[in-house]
Amino acid sequence: MADDTLGLIDDGVVISKEGRIVYAGPADGAPTTDAKVHDCEGRLITPGLIDCHTHLIHGGNRANEWAMRLQGASYEEIARAGGGIVSTMRATREASEEELVESALPRLDALIAEGVTTIEIKSGYGLSTEDEIKMLRAARALADRRAIRIEPTFLGAHALPPEYKDNSDAYIDLVVGEMIPAAAPFATAVDAFCEGIGFSPDQCARVFAAAEAHGLKVKLHAEQLSALHGSALAAKHGALSADHLEHATDDDVRAMAEAGTVAVLLPGAYYFMRETKRPSIDAMRRHGTRIALATDNNPGTSPTTSLLLMLNMGATLFGLTVIEALRGVTVNAAAALGLSAEIGTIEAGKACDLAIWDVADPAELVYRIGFNPLHQRIKDGQ
Amino acid sequence: MADDTLGLIDDGVVISKEGRIVYAGPADGAPTTDAKVHDCEGRLITPGLIDCHTHLIHGGNRANEWAMRLQGASYEEIARAGGGIVSTMRATREASEEELVESALPRLDALIAEGVTTIEIKSGYGLSTEDEIKMLRAARALADRRAIRIEPTFLGAHALPPEYKDNSDAYIDLVVGEMIPAAAPFATAVDAFCEGIGFSPDQCARVFAAAEAHGLKVKLHAEQLSALHGSALAAKHGALSADHLEHATDDDVRAMAEAGTVAVLLPGAYYFMRETKRPSIDAMRRHGTRIALATDNNPGTSPTTSLLLMLNMGATLFGLTVIEALRGVTVNAAAALGLSAEIGTIEAGKACDLAIWDVADPAELVYRIGFNPLHQRIKDGQ
Ligand SMILES: [Zn+2]
Ligand SMILES: [Zn+2]
Repeated sequence: MADDTLGLIDDGVVISKEGRIVYAGPADGAPTTDAKVHDCEGRLITPGLIDCHTHLIHGGNRANEWAMRLQGASYEEIARAGGGIVSTMRATREASEEELVESALPRLDALIAEGVTTIEIKSGYGLSTEDEIKMLRAARALADRRAIRIEPTFLGAHALPPEYKDNSDAYIDLVVGEMIPAAAPFATAVDAFCEGIGFSPDQCARVFAAAEAHGLKVKLHAEQLSALHGSALAAKHGALSADHLEHATDDDVRAMAEAGTVAVLLPGAYYFMRETKRPSIDAMRRHGTRIALATDNNPGTSPTTSLLLMLNMGATLFGLTVIEALRGVTVNAAAALGLSAEIGTIEAGKACDLAIWDVADPAELVYRIGFNPLHQRIKDGQ
Repeated sequence: MADDTLGLIDDGVVISKEGRIVYAGPADGAPTTDAKVHDCEGRLITPGLIDCHTHLIHGGNRANEWAMRLQGASYEEIARAGGGIVSTMRATREASEEELVESALPRLDALIAEGVTTIEIKSGYGLSTEDEIKMLRAARALADRRAIRIEPTFLGAHALPPEYKDNSDAYIDLVVGEMIPAAAPFATAVDAFCEGIGFSPDQCARVFAAAEAHGLKVKLHAEQLSALHGSALAAKHGALSADHLEHATDDDVRAMAEAGTVAVLLPGAYYFMRETKRPSIDAMRRHGTRIALATDNNPGTSPTTSLLLMLNMGATLFGLTVIEALRGVTVNAAAALGLSAEIGTIEAGKACDLAIWDVADPAELVYRIGFNPLHQRIKDGQ
């Protein structure tokens, strides 16, 4: 499939066996088979959608803090009222693994209802070894409750817990020396929050080195609020993705393109935080940086559970084309998870994860707002 | 209920009989009754939501034209490819009444799934007497297919049909002399599009006069793209509402407050059209102008079917508080339809239209994005 198309086939057939695609292409060239036939009646079939950046597992919500902000409360007032990321950390620490699973299920179900078949979920609100592992276990447990592929990411370096106030290097020591070794069996990748209010590029480089030593892939929250060039650092480490990127420079996205690091754009956070600086789609196009889109579902900056809405926001707010947006939640989202061989396109050999839509034109998936035209979702051929 | 609260009752009871509320208040003071009891288990009950400005009935969609725009096509190129409002007019004229009903049902169902119990629907894509009446009949027919209250509005003065190119006064002659008399039995109100690219304030005043002569209430699309002071004109005519209002002045919204004309804000159109000038909420607060929120569902500038998302956009994009947003789809939306005695609050004597929500705090209805926590919807007590 060329880089700039959807590879649509007009009169197509997908044949699956034991959950894998064995043929996908024109009805004309399809092999004969005695498989059970489902007539999709001309509907559009896409790969199952992939949400490649979420914080779906978390305790509590921050609706009340947000209501205070709308009434003009300052960050100090909100902090005094117990708000901010620390409030999510407290609620997450207080919750049991089972409570975290239960509270995430309605959010997961909202995504599943939109045809999502794979979702990445980060830790990062536990901020202690035990609570981070509890989050990763809860994320993995979702796959026992629903037909969904979960990719758990360790994000210990998300925020500084109060225990390490003014001592971020000591916290990174803990992340590197204790958390990553303990979390490695539960995660497929390691992420960090590279930002003035997060961790420095040097600290993130230490996190990456520890991840690599444990055979884990890396990715990074980078250039959301300022240009620290974490995305170039991520590229240097062969990261799967660098995410947010509102402030990424031309050099940053060129380095990403050269390293094959995917640009994961999160328009829900941009929207909810009323940001005005958009990521440079032009630079990404010029350099051939692959672009993915995700919900960033989290209680503080992106309380969204609609990947379809992110398609529209990617187009409306960031100027992506319909093709770019749709590739961003399929083939490029698979690349952002290192799963290009497994999911993201409808090709023989891959998992038979499909979404079947009641639309006449793929553009409708991006154009409509708050409308879900899913007809059927297929996970592993079922 | 005070103007600036939600009037929440902690341990409340609603008693209904034959579709009307006979008691709403604390469980403590509730009269004894032999009615069947539904335990809502502590869930939040709000009035059924009201979407007070939509163009839900229309032929076709404009996904393809939008996809072209994202790829950089100019308005001229789109017009040459058959796009723009004229394409919706053509598709609407070509559709039968039954086809218009059928194509609107999935959109209506999306709103119903969010607890909407009343919806206003405008004509305005027929632009001939026959096709305008076909649209109004289709809107009314939706009430036979679903448990929903429909308020049909005649919007003949929406756009200039090609037959009247460069002759807008002659088209207004038709609207005033033929369409309004013919449409009067099918509509409860008359609307017009007051804008440089629509109709002038003088032309809108003629439409209002004809509406009044037929006993119909009036409302106006005003100050969306420029300040023609249509909203002050609407106030002068005692209009139910003036809608959009991005460019309304302090004097405009003061006149609206004095006349009791509701300000209907349409953040979906603002978002989709990438506008940057926001309506002045401050001026509305200062003058006490009542604020409502609606989807403006239409294929060209607001292809949204989520009133819950409009709550969030009203807050995120326009800065409404949680209370203002929620009043905007309940009590003030009822006022915008002239139905304050009938719906919009949970009070004895009104229709028993309710939405029951799986949320701990009303703020969650505004805060979440693309998530529908509706537990149950009650229309006329059922
Ligand atoms: Zn994130
Ligand atoms: Zn409108």
